[in-house]
Amino acid sequence: MGWGDLGGGVLGQPAKETPNLDQMAAEGVTLTDFYTANPLCSPSRAALLTGRLPIRNGFYTTNDHARNSYTPQEIVGGIADFELLLPELLQKGGYHNKIVGKWHLGHQEQYLPLKHGFHEWFGAPNCHFGPYDDGKTPNIPVYRNAEMVGRYYEEFAIDKHKGVSNLTQMYIKEAVEFIEEHSNTTKPFFLYWAPDSTHGPVYASMPFIGKSQRGRYGDAVMELDHGVGAILRTLERLAIDKRTFVFFTSDNGAAVSDRAASGSNGPFLCGKQTTFEGGMREPAIAWWPGQIKNPGTRKRRLPGKLEVFTRVELMLSVKFLCHAEWRPVFFYRGNEMMAVRYGFYKAHYWTWSNGWDEIKVGIDFCPGQVLANMTQHEQQNHTARPLLFHLGRDPGEKFPVRFSSPEYDAAMSPIRRIVVEHKRNLVAGTPQLNVCDVAVQ
Amino acid sequence: MGWGDLGGGVLGQPAKETPNLDQMAAEGVTLTDFYTANPLCSPSRAALLTGRLPIRNGFYTTNDHARNSYTPQEIVGGIADFELLLPELLQKGGYHNKIVGKWHLGHQEQYLPLKHGFHEWFGAPNCHFGPYDDGKTPNIPVYRNAEMVGRYYEEFAIDKHKGVSNLTQMYIKEAVEFIEEHSNTTKPFFLYWAPDSTHGPVYASMPFIGKSQRGRYGDAVMELDHGVGAILRTLERLAIDKRTFVFFTSDNGAAVSDRAASGSNGPFLCGKQTTFEGGMREPAIAWWPGQIKNPGTRKRRLPGKLEVFTRVELMLSVKFLCHAEWRPVFFYRGNEMMAVRYGFYKAHYWTWSNGWDEIKVGIDFCPGQVLANMTQHEQQNHTARPLLFHLGRDPGEKFPVRFSSPEYDAAMSPIRRIVVEHKRNLVAGTPQLNVCDVAVQ
Ligand SMILES: [Ca+2]
Ligand SMILES: [Ca+2]
Repeated sequence: MGWGDLGGGVLGQPAKETPNLDQMAAEGVTLTDFYTANPLCSPSRAALLTGRLPIRNGFYTTNDHARNSYTPQEIVGGIADFELLLPELLQKGGYHNKIVGKWHLGHQEQYLPLKHGFHEWFGAPNCHFGPYDDGKTPNIPVYRNAEMVGRYYEEFAIDKHKGVSNLTQMYIKEAVEFIEEHSNTTKPFFLYWAPDSTHGPVYASMPFIGKSQRGRYGDAVMELDHGVGAILRTLERLAIDKRTFVFFTSDNGAAVSDRAASGSNGPFLCGKQTTFEGGMREPAIAWWPGQIKNPGTRKRRLPGKLEVFTRVELMLSVKFLCHAEWRPVFFYRGNEMMAVRYGFYKAHYWTWSNGWDEIKVGIDFCPGQVLANMTQHEQQNHTARPLLFHLGRDPGEKFPVRFSSPEYDAAMSPIRRIVVEHKRNLVAGTPQLNVCDVAVQ
Repeated sequence: MGWGDLGGGVLGQPAKETPNLDQMAAEGVTLTDFYTANPLCSPSRAALLTGRLPIRNGFYTTNDHARNSYTPQEIVGGIADFELLLPELLQKGGYHNKIVGKWHLGHQEQYLPLKHGFHEWFGAPNCHFGPYDDGKTPNIPVYRNAEMVGRYYEEFAIDKHKGVSNLTQMYIKEAVEFIEEHSNTTKPFFLYWAPDSTHGPVYASMPFIGKSQRGRYGDAVMELDHGVGAILRTLERLAIDKRTFVFFTSDNGAAVSDRAASGSNGPFLCGKQTTFEGGMREPAIAWWPGQIKNPGTRKRRLPGKLEVFTRVELMLSVKFLCHAEWRPVFFYRGNEMMAVRYGFYKAHYWTWSNGWDEIKVGIDFCPGQVLANMTQHEQQNHTARPLLFHLGRDPGEKFPVRFSSPEYDAAMSPIRRIVVEHKRNLVAGTPQLNVCDVAVQ
């Protein structure tokens, strides 16, 4: 989902179809400058759960330069044991942990959620790709805890043609029941609710089909929004809302290349798969009645997924703080640091939309957007003189700060120092996502 | 100002710097599908005040095909006496009327506001262009009622270089004092508050300089927002808020061609001067405590400036209704009907961004946006087979509905009938904006 997929208040998504998320924002805090650590699903989720950049936690590939990669079924890699995951950390604090939905941190036995801090799981190791033949490529399995209980398109029906599936309803039910079960105990709980219906092939359950003004994608967004509402209302009904912290975000910006299911990244450039704002700036709402001062406000200074992790560490000592200072945000694509944000400035060291091989078959990560030296189809190295944008004046990354201006020198000076330090301290993990599709060996 | 210039709630403008407009929206109704009648100032304002398309009320030019035009100082035309203006209509209903700020419906004596239904005026017949030499082109005059009281850049200072002027503060003071004076009488009042600080050269008063995260343009938006707050708080303080209807909108989408003062049109295509959504979809908020049911809600079905006029006619009998049915919206550029919207569908009969002559000197109405057959620099006639978009699924007008699809035929069938009827009934007014700049005679 993208920044522009949320509605309420004044003039976000024109269709205004996310009343529950809007209410969550009105009662909580919206973080306007929140970033994912990667514009693609697996690395983003690995970063969320480890608090470390994909290049550190191994969720990247060296197959090719600046290549995005995830965990298809063919992948042999996954999350390393020595990584300390959020549920593992919470387990030490006495939490009971459940994941509902998509995992994406590795398919093999040793990589599954129950080996990495979760006590319960209902969902799948991968997206609902398929249907596949029953031969070489089996359909994606669905698990209840450590046990496989069926497969997508088989026991867990998805009508890809009509875009209909009951899966999100099942995930909602799992979440509500888990909260109900654990509301009366003294033991705290952690629920990682990770539905995947807005990922292509987009689906919704029958009551949501055709409900949206935005087509199938909008139907799926409405059902997700409904799920968020069901979860928050459950917390209120059980009177545990004042001791439950809820955080909403997405793994990457909306995919905008598919005309039938295009999400919205609002005023931002491009979308999923890119390190432009449209690929990495995420909707992010924190909710905790009674604990969040000034409900309905917005904060800029909480820059990204790695922060969520730090924040949860703090929460174990029941503290919820906002950093008063900017921290740098690094934008990686595969093995390359493409850009850095510091304060309002974002410097692009490398730029690329996607390659001609994909463009030729109609895949375009930036449809309708063409900016010289930014969205071109060959990778460009600007390391000697990065392209600089002021995201306050120019959130769409359209008007680069002039190289010859005093502003350029003043902004780039701390950024250059930050990059030197970052690269000096970087210990790259073993790439887990090599051989990330059948075509690349 | 553009759709994307407003902040609050969830995820509109990333900088979130319009708390007063956001509060107004939370207490009122946001109209998500509200259009101006023209993507340029003079024709848009003429349409707002007459309730008629510029091609009917004469605010267009036949100098050139599909040419935008306004009222520079050299213009001899203006608003015709026989047009029934909103203040004239209200005068019949016993209202006392004042305009504060920019008029733009003609410079000559006979076209000024006090000849067309306003009882009071403080402002100028034109934007704050200049400074000019004192010879051939005098600076724009500023009026109090029928009397000229000075000129921009002379008695009414604007520091164009620093972007500083006290004008918006003067306009706020005028508005508040007018409301105070008329709050105790039994006679109803109408205030047309038309500040122009977000128009280039953008300005703000000293307390707002550097206050925004968005540069000078953001400073001006913040001061406007502050003015809206001052007006609403005055109504509340005088306890007349429950009998005062307030409507906020803009004359055209944000200009996006100026890197120093680029507004935001959110997810929409291009900006001011174009008939794409970025040029004509406007922020629009209606506020009337006690009268508006379900505060904070959004309505799609109140399609444009012409509706405001109808609505005010209804208000004279103290009624505020929302149409339950879609009405067609016509998108004109000068003398040409460029596009039509009906329901969720928008059909482009002509497309154009702007010409090569302007592009060569760096003026681009669609910076960074390139869509085949849409944003090109020559006018294209699609009348035989209009380009069709579904604005629910695709608010950015990126993915045309396929010509060969059943959807195309189903949607175009009523639109073709609507266009035939519109053209048959159209009585074009005498063009008032010919000779619209010195270069065109
Ligand atoms: Ca571990
Ligand atoms: Ca008249």
